[in-house]
Amino acid sequence: MIAANDPARSSWLNVAADSDFSIQNLPFGIFKTAASDARAASAIGDQVVDLAALHRLGFFEGIELPEGVFESDTLNDFIALGQPVWRAVRDRISDILKSDSTYSLKDEASQQAEVLFPMAEVEMLLPVYVRDYTDFYSSEEHATNVGTMFRGKENALMPNWKHLPVGYHGRASSIIVSGTDVHRPKGQTKADDADPAYGPSRLLDFELEMAFIIGKSTTLGDQVTTGEADAHIFGMVLFNDWSARDIQKWEYVPLGPFLGKSFASSISPWIVTLDALEPFRVAGPVQQPAVLPYLQYEGDKNFDIQLEVDIETAGGDAQTVCVSNHKHLYWNINQQLAHHTVNGCNINVGDMMASGTISGPAEGSYGSMLEITWRGTKPVQMPDGTERKFLQDGDSLVIRGFSQKEGVRVGFGEVRGKVLPTK
Amino acid sequence: MIAANDPARSSWLNVAADSDFSIQNLPFGIFKTAASDARAASAIGDQVVDLAALHRLGFFEGIELPEGVFESDTLNDFIALGQPVWRAVRDRISDILKSDSTYSLKDEASQQAEVLFPMAEVEMLLPVYVRDYTDFYSSEEHATNVGTMFRGKENALMPNWKHLPVGYHGRASSIIVSGTDVHRPKGQTKADDADPAYGPSRLLDFELEMAFIIGKSTTLGDQVTTGEADAHIFGMVLFNDWSARDIQKWEYVPLGPFLGKSFASSISPWIVTLDALEPFRVAGPVQQPAVLPYLQYEGDKNFDIQLEVDIETAGGDAQTVCVSNHKHLYWNINQQLAHHTVNGCNINVGDMMASGTISGPAEGSYGSMLEITWRGTKPVQMPDGTERKFLQDGDSLVIRGFSQKEGVRVGFGEVRGKVLPTK
Repeated sequence: MIAANDPARSSWLNVAADSDFSIQNLPFGIFKTAASDARAASAIGDQVVDLAALHRLGFFEGIELPEGVFESDTLNDFIALGQPVWRAVRDRISDILKSDSTYSLKDEASQQAEVLFPMAEVEMLLPVYVRDYTDFYSSEEHATNVGTMFRGKENALMPNWKHLPVGYHGRASSIIVSGTDVHRPKGQTKADDADPAYGPSRLLDFELEMAFIIGKSTTLGDQVTTGEADAHIFGMVLFNDWSARDIQKWEYVPLGPFLGKSFASSISPWIVTLDALEPFRVAGPVQQPAVLPYLQYEGDKNFDIQLEVDIETAGGDAQTVCVSNHKHLYWNINQQLAHHTVNGCNINVGDMMASGTISGPAEGSYGSMLEITWRGTKPVQMPDGTERKFLQDGDSLVIRGFSQKEGVRVGFGEVRGKVLPTK
Repeated sequence: MIAANDPARSSWLNVAADSDFSIQNLPFGIFKTAASDARAASAIGDQVVDLAALHRLGFFEGIELPEGVFESDTLNDFIALGQPVWRAVRDRISDILKSDSTYSLKDEASQQAEVLFPMAEVEMLLPVYVRDYTDFYSSEEHATNVGTMFRGKENALMPNWKHLPVGYHGRASSIIVSGTDVHRPKGQTKADDADPAYGPSRLLDFELEMAFIIGKSTTLGDQVTTGEADAHIFGMVLFNDWSARDIQKWEYVPLGPFLGKSFASSISPWIVTLDALEPFRVAGPVQQPAVLPYLQYEGDKNFDIQLEVDIETAGGDAQTVCVSNHKHLYWNINQQLAHHTVNGCNINVGDMMASGTISGPAEGSYGSMLEITWRGTKPVQMPDGTERKFLQDGDSLVIRGFSQKEGVRVGFGEVRGKVLPTK
């Protein structure tokens, strides 16, 4: 077992029972304060742990770390040091923060003042520079729902869907961190009975997704097998793939989604490592028909991660519109990565690969307004008496996610974004 | 007129009449020699002009250039200095190299030894770091040919095609420079009468394209109008969008091309500036029906660039398979950029936006084997007696392009890639 995952560990710092950031989590992110520049961090309870300060104070002695690796506005250089280094650093943070720690931070108030910051008082930044971003389409329920709406129940799934994890390239430049507001995009749309028109999207939607982040690069021509994939993945984040359905509908044939998506994609600021998620692995759905050998895999490659989506109105009312789970995904992340590289496509540290909308099997577990309201035919009732077919200006969309088992909770915090009027 | 474009100028260096690199061109690239690191360059005749050396020797006096800006393995930092700086540097290079130059390079053999390198003896590198890469689909003839093959003549063009420049996100990491060999990709394919299968692509194709490179970034939420687009574009390159047709056919519905393209895209090493192409602007096709106001434009936005594609066999025989022209494009680069940013999608210096296959109106001007051989039904006869439906291992695919007018030639050199067997 990875030492930092030991469920028996607790911290000398106060960690609420329902905190996403237990000592078994210790995710990685980038933060800054009013007084200082961006640098790398971990999190515990409601505290941010300044890794640059820990390094400066000598707490990482014995781990080979380049000078300044944590004094950066991205984690890419740290991630590029490789899995043994991430593990050693996370284990060391755990050793420093655990109840029976022999490290001095526990008792030295002056060190604590240098290392620990209340989460509420810092600004979290985009944790990685995303070289390339890919979006998959790996939930059978989502693909079936959308297919049923647009092509009928009999032709819901395309013939290729159960043979390969369908995916497409997305826009890397417009990936933003939780808390960044999103202007309603403008674009070209076409109603069935009208000429094409230009204006603000009227069908602004979210998509509940998770994304994994590449931790080990390859060279053009290399393949990563399903068995090798774990070692190439650093961790995961919550992902909101904002979607303008009216723009998407008119543009996407035959080359796929483009401007209906590229105005923004939001991620949660803390990358939860694959190591921390290890205890929450579960078996995925049985894949029938059997997949080709290059997509076959051994072991549990799905994760039991509970997901919830809320719409918060400008007036402060919140309505949960979806409760889903990452384990529903038909195609797992090892298969996604093996497929992505089967043609020799090179991957780089910081690449982000998203799951596609994670819908569950039942109403209430659908991961987009398109499905929740079934193309607007079943509006969501909000606590303030209004209803929603799609998102309105002033609405905040919040995705939360966590794993929990035998008293240990490892969570992602949230990804939040507010819809602002067209700029 | 831009001084460097003066057709009356000639150089004190020998420049062949049919050279792509006249004194009116002066493109930008990155090169290295066996003896030294990567650095920025221009080209004239068969010589590479070391810009780092010119800077070191004081030739750019009066132009505000950061120290070391040319001692880089990409042009991004130089490009980010902005259009006035690119123009000043190109004009200065022209002044240094023109016949009646008053700069010392003309007469100082020791300076020439430091600045000039025979093109045949240097290695050209990828000239920019490509942040995001987008591929458009802007040739009416190409879209019509492909549509006719797959959906019949009546439904050849999709309903959206004449209303917006269809495009999709491509893979940035696998963009490679001319001269880099390409392994035949493996992947999943499906014959009409068989189960899905895994193996090397059997239908490897090229696509004759050109791409423009962003010279000025925007912030998320900003739009670039067709009128503003010129100032955001640094220059253009030849682009070969390698395509595995069998992989593409099976994977691309409904989210577009993915692994059928992402194994490699090749570009020519010299970026010809938009400034150098200015004299070769021509009117584009009349757009009917009229486009929405945000896609309307003023002035000549197409370019008269003659394009040729050759297949060279391993045995050294060459066959020209396509003669086309950039001017055929229905959607011009200003419209492409205005459309790309209409939703507020941010662009960055170094972004690459490709045209899509540039097919002309007649047989002989089609820009892919798919069209040239009409899905393999009309094989190309090679000089050695063999024939080609698609590309074979050992074939080199070479695209060349140049503009010529009133005795002035401004060319791109070539983009070359050899097909190697599956790795």
